[in-house]
Amino acid sequence: MVNQANFDLKAYLLEMRERVDNALNEYFPHVDGLTTDLIEAMRYSLFAGGKRLRPILCMAGAETVGGEGRRVLPVACALELIHTYSLIHDDLPLMDDDDLRRGKPTNHKVYGDAIALLAGDGLLTEAFSLMTSSYATGQIAPDRLLEAIRMISGAAGHDGMVGGQVVDMQWEGKKADLETVKFLHTRKTGALITASVVSGAILVGAPESQVRAVLSYGNKIGLAFQISDDILDVEGDSETMGKMAGADEEKGKTTYPSVLGLDESKKIQRALVQEAVQDLKEFGEKAEPLRQIAHYIIERKK
Amino acid sequence: MVNQANFDLKAYLLEMRERVDNALNEYFPHVDGLTTDLIEAMRYSLFAGGKRLRPILCMAGAETVGGEGRRVLPVACALELIHTYSLIHDDLPLMDDDDLRRGKPTNHKVYGDAIALLAGDGLLTEAFSLMTSSYATGQIAPDRLLEAIRMISGAAGHDGMVGGQVVDMQWEGKKADLETVKFLHTRKTGALITASVVSGAILVGAPESQVRAVLSYGNKIGLAFQISDDILDVEGDSETMGKMAGADEEKGKTTYPSVLGLDESKKIQRALVQEAVQDLKEFGEKAEPLRQIAHYIIERKK
Repeated sequence: MVNQANFDLKAYLLEMRERVDNALNEYFPHVDGLTTDLIEAMRYSLFAGGKRLRPILCMAGAETVGGEGRRVLPVACALELIHTYSLIHDDLPLMDDDDLRRGKPTNHKVYGDAIALLAGDGLLTEAFSLMTSSYATGQIAPDRLLEAIRMISGAAGHDGMVGGQVVDMQWEGKKADLETVKFLHTRKTGALITASVVSGAILVGAPESQVRAVLSYGNKIGLAFQISDDILDVEGDSETMGKMAGADEEKGKTTYPSVLGLDESKKIQRALVQEAVQDLKEFGEKAEPLRQIAHYIIERKK
Repeated sequence: MVNQANFDLKAYLLEMRERVDNALNEYFPHVDGLTTDLIEAMRYSLFAGGKRLRPILCMAGAETVGGEGRRVLPVACALELIHTYSLIHDDLPLMDDDDLRRGKPTNHKVYGDAIALLAGDGLLTEAFSLMTSSYATGQIAPDRLLEAIRMISGAAGHDGMVGGQVVDMQWEGKKADLETVKFLHTRKTGALITASVVSGAILVGAPESQVRAVLSYGNKIGLAFQISDDILDVEGDSETMGKMAGADEEKGKTTYPSVLGLDESKKIQRALVQEAVQDLKEFGEKAEPLRQIAHYIIERKK
């Protein structure tokens, strides 16, 4: 049980991250065979030092409604697979053409464009295979699992992350209004973050009113996360982030700071976190990880 | 009920194809908004004249074990989404760099590389969303649906279609042995075709012995299909196929004819179809569509 007074977020994130890393390593063993390069490429990006925020949110979402984090581990890891695939495809020369990610050469720089494309496809596909494994092991009720898969695929697809990517690209170098940047942010990053925390609650059987509260929290931190990404790109340190600061401005990306300015963006971000924390009132101590994660999201340095 | 004596495959394929086309059109309405281009790109390849073989196999698989084809329509359509995504990504300049597909400009030729990439990602993701909709409408038992999703994602992923693509690419211009080309073919094309027919049987609740029989049929026609693709590339007519014949040889692709010669490839293909038809013995008249589809697969001209 989490104790509010002495809850240590840093230790919590570290422990959860290790749990995710171990599980991912087990799901993706090294293999010798005809597809070795593919598996290595998938592993390369999967173990490139991600924060595992989405899996952690999924487990914390389960714990907030009184469930056990470990039970949702396969779906939690699947969320990291989806996140990782999106980064690999996003970095490709035909998209953002980035050479560095988390301080390391991007996937296509190491394995070539074709393998990088296929590693992304493989990770996205495997995510759904991994989700269904929760059922095979009897950890999760099948109807709840299907509901989670539906929510996650919706958040990742054309009306979620993929749709957000398209808008992000098509508005490069153009002056967007607030409505457009909000549309973009809630989809490009927000949707999958929201789905992460909500799927955790759904999977362990939370009643609808609790799912709604977690959803409201998730919507706010999802948007806050992307705004903080935008702000980091303006104010952050390239070395700490492992990627070049100022890239958004250089590429003419549609961001909150570019539309509303830095001060107004920070104000909105703080208000979102305050509101998100309010959404968790009914959960008491069990929601302490999610509360502190909300603050962490806008205070992080990378 | 299908009557063996007067079963008309051509009429059956036409009716089934129309059913799939209508359902796909309903799932993907035209939209006006920020993501219009993405949706149009997804629709472009989805309605580019595909044979709908995978959805038809899924419905025929359901009917063979005594189920109703319509009940599996969402999963059947999802299989076409997965197939379509794989074609879009495969045609990209960083992969096969093809300009024509089914006689029309490939997706990236019309929408550009980035949108084509994302249209593929969107189709793959939406496939899983579409599958879960079977549960939402109460058509399919949740445990059966999860089993089908697991089988389909496995067939599409790194140990299936995506893995096959990697081997296909890496062996270009090299002399492969029979084991390698079989590994390649069963994954690149065979796995999803097998999963199509087997998922149909699983979804309508077939007992395990029947699923095994359909699986055995599916494994054989999956391999036979790719061998016939190889043979068509040697003997087929470019205009009828809507793509250039002889492309495999020009690219130095690993094919059955290149490893075993044309005559031996045809012999193997015919034997596979004979065996596949044998696998359906126990199902009587209801399996007539699958029997005739097995023959059609190696007799088709495109």
